[in-house]
Amino acid sequence: MYLKGSSWQERYLANQVYTLRCRIAEKPGMVGKIAQAIGTCDVHVGTIDLVELGATDQNREILVFCKTTDQLDKVVNAVNAIQDAKVLEVVDEVAEIHRRGTIQMVSRVPIETLTDLRMVYTPGVADACLMIKEDTDQAWEMTGICDRVAIVTNGTAVLGLGAIGPLASLPVMEGKAAIFAEFTGISAVPVLIDSNDVDTIVETVVLTAGSYGAIQLEDIAAPACFEIEDKLRARLNIPVFHDDQHGTATVVLAALINALKQTGRKPQDSTVLMLGAGAAGIAISKILIDFGIKDIVVYDSAGAIYKGRTEKMNQYKEKLAEITNSNKVTCPLAQGFKDKDIFIGVAQPNMVTKDMIASMADNPIVFPLSNPVGEISKEEARQAGAAVTADGRDVNNALAYPGLFRGALDVRAESITSQMQVAAASKLAEISPEGYLLPDMLDREVHMQVAQAVAEEYQKNKS
Amino acid sequence: MYLKGSSWQERYLANQVYTLRCRIAEKPGMVGKIAQAIGTCDVHVGTIDLVELGATDQNREILVFCKTTDQLDKVVNAVNAIQDAKVLEVVDEVAEIHRRGTIQMVSRVPIETLTDLRMVYTPGVADACLMIKEDTDQAWEMTGICDRVAIVTNGTAVLGLGAIGPLASLPVMEGKAAIFAEFTGISAVPVLIDSNDVDTIVETVVLTAGSYGAIQLEDIAAPACFEIEDKLRARLNIPVFHDDQHGTATVVLAALINALKQTGRKPQDSTVLMLGAGAAGIAISKILIDFGIKDIVVYDSAGAIYKGRTEKMNQYKEKLAEITNSNKVTCPLAQGFKDKDIFIGVAQPNMVTKDMIASMADNPIVFPLSNPVGEISKEEARQAGAAVTADGRDVNNALAYPGLFRGALDVRAESITSQMQVAAASKLAEISPEGYLLPDMLDREVHMQVAQAVAEEYQKNKS
Repeated sequence: MYLKGSSWQERYLANQVYTLRCRIAEKPGMVGKIAQAIGTCDVHVGTIDLVELGATDQNREILVFCKTTDQLDKVVNAVNAIQDAKVLEVVDEVAEIHRRGTIQMVSRVPIETLTDLRMVYTPGVADACLMIKEDTDQAWEMTGICDRVAIVTNGTAVLGLGAIGPLASLPVMEGKAAIFAEFTGISAVPVLIDSNDVDTIVETVVLTAGSYGAIQLEDIAAPACFEIEDKLRARLNIPVFHDDQHGTATVVLAALINALKQTGRKPQDSTVLMLGAGAAGIAISKILIDFGIKDIVVYDSAGAIYKGRTEKMNQYKEKLAEITNSNKVTCPLAQGFKDKDIFIGVAQPNMVTKDMIASMADNPIVFPLSNPVGEISKEEARQAGAAVTADGRDVNNALAYPGLFRGALDVRAESITSQMQVAAASKLAEISPEGYLLPDMLDREVHMQVAQAVAEEYQKNKS
Repeated sequence: MYLKGSSWQERYLANQVYTLRCRIAEKPGMVGKIAQAIGTCDVHVGTIDLVELGATDQNREILVFCKTTDQLDKVVNAVNAIQDAKVLEVVDEVAEIHRRGTIQMVSRVPIETLTDLRMVYTPGVADACLMIKEDTDQAWEMTGICDRVAIVTNGTAVLGLGAIGPLASLPVMEGKAAIFAEFTGISAVPVLIDSNDVDTIVETVVLTAGSYGAIQLEDIAAPACFEIEDKLRARLNIPVFHDDQHGTATVVLAALINALKQTGRKPQDSTVLMLGAGAAGIAISKILIDFGIKDIVVYDSAGAIYKGRTEKMNQYKEKLAEITNSNKVTCPLAQGFKDKDIFIGVAQPNMVTKDMIASMADNPIVFPLSNPVGEISKEEARQAGAAVTADGRDVNNALAYPGLFRGALDVRAESITSQMQVAAASKLAEISPEGYLLPDMLDREVHMQVAQAVAEEYQKNKS
């Protein structure tokens, strides 16, 4: 992975970012003392900026990553305890970044002259309207539909926070939109729907879908998310894509492709134990099958899922039972690990033991993806013999969704198919640096390559 | 007005803008010949750019404003008929400006480092979500709601084009959003609703209103627009503002305030004949009354509207009859003009004669606002004795709506009241250059001043 080391998990959990504005005496050793003091609070230090340098004093801005506000208080006290050092101010960087939102609608054209105004708006705009009225396809040419995605949520399954409601989920939708904009130039609009009723949500999206080129469903709880997606796909002729399912599945497949390569395995000969049969578990299982993996057993809280099981089933698990576990394995979870090549967890923290990992085939692939804490830590998995590991921090769907949508929009695809996802995953695997499972998601070129692979896959099947 | 002259109406009707890329011999008199040739086609010339200058040839880009494509053909032929001049290419500038849309969603924060990503998105974003979950008011601090407006339409009354449907209306909504962004930094999102049913539209807006700080209704036909606005205002605690009514009314009032001043009139003593009882006519009548004008008679196609009239009435005209025409005037339109101080037309082209204007009080104010052709031309009105005139091109609601929304959002107003509109109109009148009815809408300062006046009016009534 492009970020390694045991500190990464620590860092990930530290989701509060502060800047300490400090005044420090201008003499050697002071910065070292401060960094050391922060370290003793179990807090990571980021950039240390020199803001002002006087004859006797210096002003510094020090970025720190905390897990709690208590930790921040400790850091401030520790710095203030140093002679000739004082924290003048603490800036909550996360709050600053989200203040007034992370996205903004701008004009793509300057409006400086009357001619500008008369072309953007009346009377000139009438010409653009009439072109669309005569030929609705022109809307893809003469409006922003070709770049515009609705990010639709009802806020029922937001991050690890659960059903916090649509309004509280808005910073996430804006964050996703900011990523869309920065990585692929897509104009994404957060659409909050204040309802938990499947048909209400479907009707609302259908009625308002006209100004979008694609729909991203986001943070909608299962099983409503499946039904909403199915119904919308049936009624709309633009892509409808539930990111928590398919974005995640695409990135997991990408990482797995490289893990298979690194451990010398072929998909058709590899066996998988999947733990978790929610939105992500079902979607990952399906894409693995589309990729060519034949032997998957999915476990949920009631054990292995098999055709004919009656406990805790629903129509989605029924369908899963049709395409997985052809041997009708029914043994408990712990035995299920025996001789398996691959473990993928999308369930709950700390459900898997070292013994379970140790019972797997030689050099197993272990992906405990539950967030923010995995089914087993990567470190323990490796101690138990795992050859390749990845957790929920490594598998970030921001690697997949920007390129998938960009590619689909570029060829005006009616849907994002499983084949297009496999193409995206294969491209992500292919362009990963040697020895890594996935490429750097901050590299814009990565998203452009994914987009191109997705567009080519669509056109191949179209022609 | 800030744009005068008889050519303005001509220019306005010329809503097609083209750039002619021409190769011309490099010798004196060529540019003059070309400009002359274009002029003989009854076409206005804009900027003439020198793009390339060779020893014997020059390349020029010439902007021309045409009314029809036939006119363009004539121009091209006329230029090509000149010896040593050739049109190499014609660029449709309106199409170029609207290609891929006039607006774009961007990230307000750079996403260059993992720290950026971890603050904009997971895990940092969870902090912003939790702040809102604990206190929903925080959504105005921690998201873009404070700057975001939905521009809602069903495309049933678009410009002069009529019911062209939501999709074909999208360039107008994008154009309005571009103006919002350029003039006041508001992030406006076009929301197309594919329905003509009042309750469906109301429910859809209510369900999705969560991510907006205000709702602008746009190009929805009467009487549905009244009902939709009333119902939304009753159900939402953010401003709901039908621009075709209230934006227009605000700018008309602004122009009228200066016209009253220029002709030495007081509102309470002035009499008004209003022609047209649609969305704009009703809204203008109401704001004039709120401003202090006492004597208004509104005419529609069935004559003067009065309390007790039975022909062609609806609930909105009934209400209008309650607050206007207290003398129960019933005479025909032509007689209705007699001794009136002010005429405002929002009806149909060419319904008013010079004789009607001549029968008004001395130095009357004549606003024939019907678009694109007025109830009478300004020129004819002046010939018949009008002291001050304005038509639909002069009264552009882009002067009002950006500042009205900016002001309302800045103080988090629950609605845009009639008083706030009067405050906006008074400010627009106040800051107009001496001798003009309205200020320059391209001047950003104008919109900021309107916003401030609107915000102050709200706070005055709040405290």
